[in-house]
Amino acid sequence: MSADVFLYKADPVRGAEWAALFAAKAPHIEFAQWPYEGDPARVRYLAAWLPPASLSCFPNLEVLFSVGAGINQFDLAAIPPQVALARMVEPGIVGGMVEYVTLATLSIHREWLAYREQQRAATWQARRVRPAGARRVGVLGLGVLAQAVLVQLRGLGFPCAGWSRSQHTIEGVDCYSGAEGLQAFLARTDILVCLLPLTDSTRGILDRALFAVLPRGAALIQCGRGPHLDQNALLEALDSGHLSQAVLDVCEPEPLPAGHPFWQHPRIMLTPHVASMTQPETAVEVVLDNIQRHHSGQVLTGLVERGRGY
Amino acid sequence: MSADVFLYKADPVRGAEWAALFAAKAPHIEFAQWPYEGDPARVRYLAAWLPPASLSCFPNLEVLFSVGAGINQFDLAAIPPQVALARMVEPGIVGGMVEYVTLATLSIHREWLAYREQQRAATWQARRVRPAGARRVGVLGLGVLAQAVLVQLRGLGFPCAGWSRSQHTIEGVDCYSGAEGLQAFLARTDILVCLLPLTDSTRGILDRALFAVLPRGAALIQCGRGPHLDQNALLEALDSGHLSQAVLDVCEPEPLPAGHPFWQHPRIMLTPHVASMTQPETAVEVVLDNIQRHHSGQVLTGLVERGRGY
Repeated sequence: MSADVFLYKADPVRGAEWAALFAAKAPHIEFAQWPYEGDPARVRYLAAWLPPASLSCFPNLEVLFSVGAGINQFDLAAIPPQVALARMVEPGIVGGMVEYVTLATLSIHREWLAYREQQRAATWQARRVRPAGARRVGVLGLGVLAQAVLVQLRGLGFPCAGWSRSQHTIEGVDCYSGAEGLQAFLARTDILVCLLPLTDSTRGILDRALFAVLPRGAALIQCGRGPHLDQNALLEALDSGHLSQAVLDVCEPEPLPAGHPFWQHPRIMLTPHVASMTQPETAVEVVLDNIQRHHSGQVLTGLVERGRGY
Repeated sequence: MSADVFLYKADPVRGAEWAALFAAKAPHIEFAQWPYEGDPARVRYLAAWLPPASLSCFPNLEVLFSVGAGINQFDLAAIPPQVALARMVEPGIVGGMVEYVTLATLSIHREWLAYREQQRAATWQARRVRPAGARRVGVLGLGVLAQAVLVQLRGLGFPCAGWSRSQHTIEGVDCYSGAEGLQAFLARTDILVCLLPLTDSTRGILDRALFAVLPRGAALIQCGRGPHLDQNALLEALDSGHLSQAVLDVCEPEPLPAGHPFWQHPRIMLTPHVASMTQPETAVEVVLDNIQRHHSGQVLTGLVERGRGY
């Protein structure tokens, strides 16, 4: 009997690292990179950023792993109901997001880009520092990434709050929920961090009405998905001075077209969807653990509930 | 009998905040801002960035407080031996330095300035992220500021080491000391943070020989004092590619002259000595506590040992 096949369809450079890790840690599984020329009936597991348009050619597929933290790039209707679906929740991706949001928060808090401009103009001019205790951070979304981010920012002395659909309890973090909670959450937030999943109910959530509730001078860190943001509403809020700065790691489309106003905007920092990347070393460990969980009937780490869409 | 006078000689805007805090917390002490027109014999305490050239006009001066973390701007020989001398060690200044070094470290680690340049060029190009565990941070100096910085960076997953003249023990931090320890410390350091006091033995320590021991591609964060750094050695190391980046908060002189190569260097981030600023609210608490300590014969927080110069 031939071995089960784990098929990988994403960045091939990282794929080579996955292959070496599988060879060392799970030699009983045959690791293959897309495009796959073998017997499709042997493919039990598929890890992908974008799955193939149809999965029907893999009749024995049991688990589909997203190589990213989100699964909004998947067409859930095209995935057979018996296939389990897992988002990537692994220490590398969590650590990367903690780093990025901490960097973006401190960059806003300590006016890093304004100092960069002053340097270019050969200007030596101190700007008054607010203590962290006077800069309130609020995170939209309270999943694994958001919780890790909040613990870090709380440790730096920022008063922290979080909002999600359902009520959570996190030590040292003011937790808000639901539509009514959102207004109170926004009104106390000086730096707003979006770490929401993209669903029908969060699409376009960062809009004119939401920005209007933030205190004047507030800033945005957008690490969710591009379609969360109404781009014109952000430009208006920045240009009117209602918002002071924005750090965007995602946009719609990616990349932005040439000439898009975000590229040259002095108060927007834009990075190319790099806030957090799956790290092969730790991701393969979680994937192998999930394969074990799958076989022993345990709940997968990062299991997607199709009804809610994440 | 008239009240003791606390004389403040530094930034007058902050001085007004100190005055309000003294009025609320220590109404028994008369707070005065420089220039002082009253009876010099009543001045028992002086807080200054730069003290007056001669202190002999204040015959009853008991304690001289630096409003900054360092005292290298003081001429120790000009301070009468019976006057106690205290550096500023207060939670606000510690928190500010933790923020700044964390920001600078993450900015280097996540290539923030390179992404800023890419944005300006409308380039959407991911750069591979190294995990924090593969980026070794080393701090020169192991005082109160350095220890707080190390705890924070260790929490972000960076392997951390520290070096100082005398041997220290800090949980989770590899501590090196002395001249022989310095070589081993440098050889394992990818991001070098200078938080040393400026003394005769640390002046010019960041020189060609020191940079040569760092691994190729290492980066420098300079939050000590300007004269620690050999500026030409830094430019050479950056231009040869041996060092990748530098973040400088201090220089010599401050500000740098027009046309100095640091202003426009693409791989130097320069800020105007703002890494950490004394926060009036917390500083006044520490100063009042130190006045109590002084009267009850306890050791002052931040007491300067004149023999070692810090």
